[in-house]
Formats: sequence, C-alpha cells, structure tokens
Amino acid sequence: MPHIKLNNQLPGITGLLEYRLDTALPIRELTEILLRQENSLTRGERELIASLVSSKNECFYCTNAHVTVTNQLLGEEETTHCVIHNDIDSAKISDKMKALLKIALQVQKSGKEVTKVAIKNAKDCGANDNEIHDTVLIASLFCLYNKYVDGMATIAPKEQEYYNQLGHKIVDFGYNRRPQNLPKIKH
Amino acid sequence: MPHIKLNNQLPGITGLLEYRLDTALPIRELTEILLRQENSLTRGERELIASLVSSKNECFYCTNAHVTVTNQLLGEEETTHCVIHNDIDSAKISDKMKALLKIALQVQKSGKEVTKVAIKNAKDCGANDNEIHDTVLIASLFCLYNKYVDGMATIAPKEQEYYNQLGHKIVDFGYNRRPQNLPKIKH
Repeated sequence: MPHIKLNNQLPGITGLLEYRLDTALPIRELTEILLRQENSLTRGERELIASLVSSKNECFYCTNAHVTVTNQLLGEEETTHCVIHNDIDSAKISDKMKALLKIALQVQKSGKEVTKVAIKNAKDCGANDNEIHDTVLIASLFCLYNKYVDGMATIAPKEQEYYNQLGHKIVDFGYNRRPQNLPKIKH
Repeated sequence: MPHIKLNNQLPGITGLLEYRLDTALPIRELTEILLRQENSLTRGERELIASLVSSKNECFYCTNAHVTVTNQLLGEEETTHCVIHNDIDSAKISDKMKALLKIALQVQKSGKEVTKVAIKNAKDCGANDNEIHDTVLIASLFCLYNKYVDGMATIAPKEQEYYNQLGHKIVDFGYNRRPQNLPKIKH
C-alpha cells in the first residue's frame, strides 16, 4: 500500500504521475525525449538500458514494464533475459551496446563509479558522445524512477497481462499520454 | 575533464544542460517546480534535502552549489553543517524536517529502504502527504543530478566564490534561466 493517499488506484509510476500532475509533465517529457525521439540508439536499445538499471535497483514495477516494452520492440525475449541476468556479453546485441550497458551499470551504482576504461571501451566500439551522454542520463533517470516508485511504496500488479497492455500503450503512444483505460488492478 | 566534448567550459550540471538543451528544459522545469514553486516546505527546507542527498552521494559540485543556496536562503551556515555532517538531530530545524530528512537519507540508499516507521514518524511530526511525496521526489531527483554530474566527469570549481555567485543567481532567478555571465573557471 502506498505511503500516502494517492487518490487513485493506479499502480507504480502511473499513480504517482496522476497524484501530482505538474511535476509529472516534465518527467513524462524528459522520458519521451530520451527514450523515443530520434536518436542513433534505437528505441529498443534505450529501453534495454532502462530495463537493466531498473532490474539492478530491484524495482519490480519498472523492471516488468520496461522489459516488456523492450521485448515488444525487439520482437524477442532472449536479449533482455541475458542482459538482466548478468550475462550482457552473451546477448545478441552490438559490442557498442554491450559497452554502453556496462556504463549504465556503473551509473546505477554511482556516478563516481564510471571509469575512463569503460568510456574508452564504448568509444572504441563506436559509441559517439551523444550516445554516451544519453546512456548516462537514461541510467540516472531510471534511478530517479526506481527510487520514486519504491520510495512511495506503490503497488505493482503481478499479472504479466497488465505489463503487456501497458507496454503496447507505451510503444504506440509514448510517455506523454496520461493513462486511459488501463486494466483494473485486483486488490 | 568530462568524458565527452561538451562544446562549452561550464562546470558541473551547467555544462551538461547547455550540451543538450532539449533534455535540459524538462530537467530545469522539474527542479523549478519542486524546489521553488509554492509549497508548505520553505525553499530553504527543500534545498536542505537537495544538499543532504548530494553530500551523501559525494557529489562535490552539487553539494557545494545547494549547501550555498541553502545557506543564502536560511541566512546562516550552522544548519547545513549539522545536516550534512550526520548530525540532523542537533540542527535547529523542526521535528518534521528532521523526519523528512531521514526519509531522504533512505531514498538516497534505495527506494526500498524507506520504512513505514520513518513515514509514520514524519506524519506524527506533522508532515502531510504532499510533503512526504515531495521529499521522496526531491531526493530521487538529486540522485539523478549527482549521477549525471559525476557520471559524465564534469569539472567543479574549487573556489567558494564561484558557488556564492551561482547561489545568488539561483536564489534570484531560479532554475529555468540558462547561464549568463557565470564566473570564468581557472584551468
């Protein structure tokens, strides 16, 4: 049960964004720009960063939501499975993405953990400055999300069907749209 | 030296916000709403949360910036000194603020660290739902900032005079204004 009365029964971040609409607006906008606007990293690659960071922070709601979005975008589940189960190197992704995910892992621990070696490795694998920048900012943003969602003790549906429907709404309409007809949660 | 070419010589977060202006806009806006718009927590109290979280994350730039802003708003330095040196209970602040700062400390570690006991304590000390919400979100936002600033290896001036001038600009004009005539950095 959430630590405060949200005046809605929406789970995870969706209930928090409906609780305070003025702060929700820039949070939604930042996410839309970083994860969906034109970028040399695909939407699936950026969602993979969000999935990895959320799983390391053990945020059940965010991990399920973004793993599902990533799977829907990639059209398969093997990649996220490898990445969130400590097997980045076996995932069928580019060396550049492997290097960027390793930077995201460092950011999840602390900004101070990001090493010159990890940055050089990413550059050697072809990552440009924008891609490194966006990886660090996406990882930082999902630490915000994970702390917000779990710090407020929001509820999280257990049924995968909820995340499938949420995922399709995110894939189709993005992060700026307020929830409409989200599936009811069992209490 | 920053991990990427920022195309400016601005330190800390200021250089990152100038590097990518589209993501800077919602980051600035979220900060302005949370730290400066009308709220039952004073601007000084909200900056104190930002200072504490930044100091726990050992982010030199953010800690100096927000401690300075807090000191300027409170008109004294003793409070921030107590709070960031693990002596919240000795600080001359309300019991409510002490309880909220302890929630912020838990968020800094992980959203999952926030305890029902800490929430109940804050409510018993008079904190309302909005204040608890904003404390969690401010703490989460500054974890984003700290990871972004240190994860990109931005430079940070050592001279307190830089932070004094930055602080006055923040106090007078807020977070939405892009840097103008910031003091030059020694290289």
